[in-house]
Amino acid sequence: SIRHLLKSLSSPDIAHLIESSPPRQRAVLWRLLDSEREGNVLQELGDDVQAQFLKGMDTDELIALTDGLEPDDIADILQQLPDRIIQEVLLAMDTQDRQRVEKILPYQEDTAGGLMNTDNISVRADITLDVVLRYLRRLPELPEIFDTIFVVNRNDRFLGQLSISKLLSSDPAMTVREIMATDIEPILASVPDTEVANLFERHDWVSSPVINEDGELLGRITIDDVVDVIRDDADHSLLSMAGLDEDSDTFATVRNTFPQRALWLGLNLLTALFSANVIGLFEQTIEKVVALAVLMPIVASMGGVAGNQTLTIIIRGMALGQIGKSNTYWLFSRELGVAICNGLLWASCAALVASLWFNDIIIGAIIASAMIINLMTAATAGVLIPVALRAMKIDPALAGTMALTTITDAVGFFSFLGLATVFLT
Amino acid sequence: SIRHLLKSLSSPDIAHLIESSPPRQRAVLWRLLDSEREGNVLQELGDDVQAQFLKGMDTDELIALTDGLEPDDIADILQQLPDRIIQEVLLAMDTQDRQRVEKILPYQEDTAGGLMNTDNISVRADITLDVVLRYLRRLPELPEIFDTIFVVNRNDRFLGQLSISKLLSSDPAMTVREIMATDIEPILASVPDTEVANLFERHDWVSSPVINEDGELLGRITIDDVVDVIRDDADHSLLSMAGLDEDSDTFATVRNTFPQRALWLGLNLLTALFSANVIGLFEQTIEKVVALAVLMPIVASMGGVAGNQTLTIIIRGMALGQIGKSNTYWLFSRELGVAICNGLLWASCAALVASLWFNDIIIGAIIASAMIINLMTAATAGVLIPVALRAMKIDPALAGTMALTTITDAVGFFSFLGLATVFLT
Ligand SMILES: [Mg+2]
Ligand SMILES: [Mg+2]
Ligand SMILES: [Mg+2]
Ligand SMILES: [Mg+2]
Ligand SMILES: [Mg+2]
Ligand SMILES: [Mg+2]
Ligand SMILES: [Mg+2]
Ligand SMILES: [Mg+2]
Ligand SMILES: [Mg+2]
Ligand SMILES: [Mg+2]
Ligand SMILES: [Mg+2]
Ligand SMILES: [Mg+2]
Ligand SMILES: [Mg+2]
Repeated sequence: SIRHLLKSLSSPDIAHLIESSPPRQRAVLWRLLDSEREGNVLQELGDDVQAQFLKGMDTDELIALTDGLEPDDIADILQQLPDRIIQEVLLAMDTQDRQRVEKILPYQEDTAGGLMNTDNISVRADITLDVVLRYLRRLPELPEIFDTIFVVNRNDRFLGQLSISKLLSSDPAMTVREIMATDIEPILASVPDTEVANLFERHDWVSSPVINEDGELLGRITIDDVVDVIRDDADHSLLSMAGLDEDSDTFATVRNTFPQRALWLGLNLLTALFSANVIGLFEQTIEKVVALAVLMPIVASMGGVAGNQTLTIIIRGMALGQIGKSNTYWLFSRELGVAICNGLLWASCAALVASLWFNDIIIGAIIASAMIINLMTAATAGVLIPVALRAMKIDPALAGTMALTTITDAVGFFSFLGLATVFLT
Repeated sequence: SIRHLLKSLSSPDIAHLIESSPPRQRAVLWRLLDSEREGNVLQELGDDVQAQFLKGMDTDELIALTDGLEPDDIADILQQLPDRIIQEVLLAMDTQDRQRVEKILPYQEDTAGGLMNTDNISVRADITLDVVLRYLRRLPELPEIFDTIFVVNRNDRFLGQLSISKLLSSDPAMTVREIMATDIEPILASVPDTEVANLFERHDWVSSPVINEDGELLGRITIDDVVDVIRDDADHSLLSMAGLDEDSDTFATVRNTFPQRALWLGLNLLTALFSANVIGLFEQTIEKVVALAVLMPIVASMGGVAGNQTLTIIIRGMALGQIGKSNTYWLFSRELGVAICNGLLWASCAALVASLWFNDIIIGAIIASAMIINLMTAATAGVLIPVALRAMKIDPALAGTMALTTITDAVGFFSFLGLATVFLT
């Protein structure tokens, strides 16, 4: 009955089912899948899950699998394999397919070249639309996503593009040159995929030509692959801020999950030991006034939460390309302003509660002052940390959270216990 | 010179520039913008920024602004305005445009109906492709994104679709019925936008028909608008986990930023006071062994960080539609397994450091036990909290973080100080 279910589902739906299954069910689903569909399902899977299935295959299986796939998807799969196997699979393909895949293979997965396909249709500028229409009808197959025809010169250099809408609505006696759009900037093959995604998003493109440094047309990128980049990039901020990887499989085993988690927790243990050291400086003060031990986590916690809000805003603004030298200072002032307002509001509340709880107005004044100091520190760190990390070419989403909480914990404990040492003992 | 710059930029680029500018520069840019371009730029802006500009406009300006925009973009703008003004703007439009906008207006912004456009082209099934081609050539304009023609019966019920690729590659003497695809599921107007995005993503669609409950064709959704939903949904998890709103303007003023931030920090103050109360239960223990005050934040911090990793994985899995009843228990076991491994590893390290630091093996044993307890609690809470919140129809991304840290702080302090009370005093 599972076999029946699989027959009734489309490849993307089967891929989704496989990605939503724990390892044992996953293996069963894969075994029950028709072997002709394996390639189509495999290319829909995330990198991590794909790698798990690829690991178990021999060269013959790989050759069977790639048969019938689009060149860009074949390239994605091959790029995960050892060089020797890549060569064997390529040799098994027919010449035209091999040439197409070989055109894509040199480009990194996370560049325009790695995203592109070679299924573009191109024509010369001096022919009439009627000739274009007859040419299209003679082709064995048109690409599934087909919104533009590219116009090239005899050296294959990109000249412009002819939208299918224009082709269908214009007089067939006109030439391509008369109606082609020449204000399109083709994308260089070396451009990072994130930038490609921003261009598509901003200009509502469905496809875009890709060229090399010489202006020669290499292929085209289609929106379906860009959508995957957009999803990945957005996931990247979310997962990196928790020390996780956007490529990782939701249903990875304990063995595969453990190393990365352990590393992150180990780093956190180091930073927590650093904060403990800061508290350790004030052991004598705490010995005299135990109330301090009760209240100190409040100051650290408020700083951590406020700083995380600032950090998240900045990291998301950076991902959207909104943050540069010209507006960082404005954002910093805004965050500081918000921190001061929140400081005044919640420090008073905390002061009131602490004073009543421990029957001591001074302890209230101390927690209020420490909280205002820590919220202002949090705003400053929340803006400066990602800006500094980006300048050092370190991913702000990955390293930002831990750097921030280290600062807000240390400053929180130090200011609260330091003030207490001066004014209470 | 700014005016020159604005002339040279496309509308989406101007919108990006405006969204990346602090309020004062933003007002200058808007003032220098040609009034004919205002509408095109406005519809590219995020909801929050759009609202800021709309607030300052009178009805005549709004009428001028909507002139030339696509019906779905007009509807998006109108939906932000008071009813009285919507009516005035609609009255100023010509009949055909008004009817198109009125077809979209009843649907909520976050449903398929709210996403759709009414620029679809539909034909009957019994005509030949040649007739279709001549019909297209007679239309004054074809939509910019144009990959399929819809096929309807005489009652406007959706029958299937004819891809432009098929139209261009097939014999013009064939009828639409012979080559139309009938295996396409049109989207119901009431379907949530997140589900629409998942369908587009999974099936690599460029556009999709939208129908009402009676199967009547209402319009179509195009990928450019779906891309915005995908970006919004992905931003939603990231920003909600920090207590922020995905619609919010990166460059909002202090006044507009403060209320939401204050609410979140106020809630955090409440939960921090709760944790402080837990510590307060053990004042006498801390008085005797001050080392406990130094070490207790380590236990809480490790639980918070580990729990946040679990929570993030679950929230992202939920957003991707991967998590249901059948696999929650597996995920829970996996997370618990990882927690136990990490607990054994890092609890031993923490025990070693604490024993040497305070020259007391028992204190090492206590921090190790408390840390293992707290990491297991964190794994449990990290899975159960989002599952429970979803069951209660509360957004797990928004409420999850604070619920989690409340639990890991309280359990961390309670287990560590509780064990110390039993074994150290
Ligand atoms: Mg792929
Ligand atoms: Mg990537
Ligand atoms: Mg690739
Ligand atoms: Mg767009
Ligand atoms: Mg592709
Ligand atoms: Mg695909
Ligand atoms: Mg809009
Ligand atoms: Mg939404
Ligand atoms: Mg709408
Ligand atoms: Mg897809
Ligand atoms: Mg639109
Ligand atoms: Mg748009
Ligand atoms: Mg919105």
